[in-house]
Amino acid sequence: MTAELPSWNDTPTQKAILDFVGAVSDESSPTYVPSVDRVATFDNDGTLWCEKPAYIQLLFAIERLKQMAEADAKLLEKPAFKAAAAGDMGYFAGLASDIPALLEIVYDTHAGMPQRDFEQLASDFLAHARHPRFDAPFKECVYQPMVELMEYLRAHGFKVFITSGGGMSFMRTVSEEIYELPRENVIGSNITFEAARQEGKLVLLRKRGLVEPIDDGPGKPVNIELHIGRPPIVAAGNSNGDIEMLEFAEASGKPFLNLLLHHDDAGREYAYDKGAERALQLSEERGWTVVSMKDDFRMVFPFEGT
Amino acid sequence: MTAELPSWNDTPTQKAILDFVGAVSDESSPTYVPSVDRVATFDNDGTLWCEKPAYIQLLFAIERLKQMAEADAKLLEKPAFKAAAAGDMGYFAGLASDIPALLEIVYDTHAGMPQRDFEQLASDFLAHARHPRFDAPFKECVYQPMVELMEYLRAHGFKVFITSGGGMSFMRTVSEEIYELPRENVIGSNITFEAARQEGKLVLLRKRGLVEPIDDGPGKPVNIELHIGRPPIVAAGNSNGDIEMLEFAEASGKPFLNLLLHHDDAGREYAYDKGAERALQLSEERGWTVVSMKDDFRMVFPFEGT
Repeated sequence: MTAELPSWNDTPTQKAILDFVGAVSDESSPTYVPSVDRVATFDNDGTLWCEKPAYIQLLFAIERLKQMAEADAKLLEKPAFKAAAAGDMGYFAGLASDIPALLEIVYDTHAGMPQRDFEQLASDFLAHARHPRFDAPFKECVYQPMVELMEYLRAHGFKVFITSGGGMSFMRTVSEEIYELPRENVIGSNITFEAARQEGKLVLLRKRGLVEPIDDGPGKPVNIELHIGRPPIVAAGNSNGDIEMLEFAEASGKPFLNLLLHHDDAGREYAYDKGAERALQLSEERGWTVVSMKDDFRMVFPFEGT
Repeated sequence: MTAELPSWNDTPTQKAILDFVGAVSDESSPTYVPSVDRVATFDNDGTLWCEKPAYIQLLFAIERLKQMAEADAKLLEKPAFKAAAAGDMGYFAGLASDIPALLEIVYDTHAGMPQRDFEQLASDFLAHARHPRFDAPFKECVYQPMVELMEYLRAHGFKVFITSGGGMSFMRTVSEEIYELPRENVIGSNITFEAARQEGKLVLLRKRGLVEPIDDGPGKPVNIELHIGRPPIVAAGNSNGDIEMLEFAEASGKPFLNLLLHHDDAGREYAYDKGAERALQLSEERGWTVVSMKDDFRMVFPFEGT
């Protein structure tokens, strides 16, 4: 067990991480990278916390659809409200990659609302929502080895960011609590805001519209450039939507470490390659480091104990 | 002279700054604000560096228009290229608030270009461009008291950001050098990017399009929310385009300090109220702190000596 990454097994993957971080942060190293360029970007769903049985943010939206339908039965005419009220999770599973339909749900549940009210709702949801299988709060279903890795990188002068395909505002309500990451270090997809005045005070309202581009696939390097201004030299993801972010690190012209988390541990978490097929193939072709949850993680969740 | 803000005169303005920062950063203070919420946002043109006789970024674009016209005479058919080639600054002064026309110039000069090439051009320009009146590099025409203020805030646990109406990528090429502000702490307006592949490598190309909203007026709080995720409690500006940012600090629900830099020093810099009329009036009505360059600044530019 390595003191700095205690939840990782002593495998070649752990060694690759330790060697890389040493090589870029030691001033006497021939591959030293100045701290200003030491940027690390982490996908969130499936890379830092569990994305099964569904994206946590989708469960948040479904809870809200249900509450809204209870308050106004007319809403049941819309299929998403009806499915939420009936607990029909199959309906939402069918929307998995139907971005316009998912956006419509996001708009229906929170558009027009002041941003601070949305934050309160998200925070309340995450305070009580529990994972159906692990009998733990969703927000504790984070991968302990990855949390340690972020801490380890920060301790070596890295600037660590989340680059989530999911909602930026949603994640920011808990990023400081669960990852010690300030809100400004969380990048993601988001709906647009409008500056309005209520009772003479400026307030930001959430609108029916999307901040372009969605922070997924080719949108990830674009949003990294807009928020950070330089490519990462450590990039971690778990799915096809992370490929362009890993390519951005590869094209940085600097030493880089790309990590692809492979969900191969049905016993402690889940085992699935769906949505990661191209990323796994590219990792093999280009020598990106595949992290096996089964082999490389000594523990998965913080609530497992050691 | 106060050790922490040596380029400020001992005026009520300086006292207001010192008192405020003490009151929010001292844990035993009744108005203590936790560090995570200590966000400070500074406009750039006219607040941190000189915006006269023209926005520096506009001069950068004009130089590029001229170079492009020299390489391709057909471009002279377009009025902006013709004016740049002829050194007709009056033409550009006439566009001052014609955002679509200015955007067209930005697109014409740099769209289609890889982002890294743009950065190199901007960096080269700022390395040689000199202010016509002060006989100093433009990038040294920064307000020394404001640079000190940013440093003073950081030393007291503030997270300091630039929120420029001008181009984000342009400012980022020098923010680390002149303000010690990392690129990720610079927010501004920007054109959009496209992730493309050249020779198998991922590259970001600058497009003919704008990241919405422009970081001016009501767009400032929106971009602050998108990049930072919370309102500032110190906000500094100099023009009408900064009003909504100051209102955002005022509506934060926390102690706040709004600063409006007043250009009233024709001797050492420039004296003008144009474009700041509403901001000056609101400052009076709401008790925001007006900073007088003439009275509150012991020195203006770093090259003046002490």
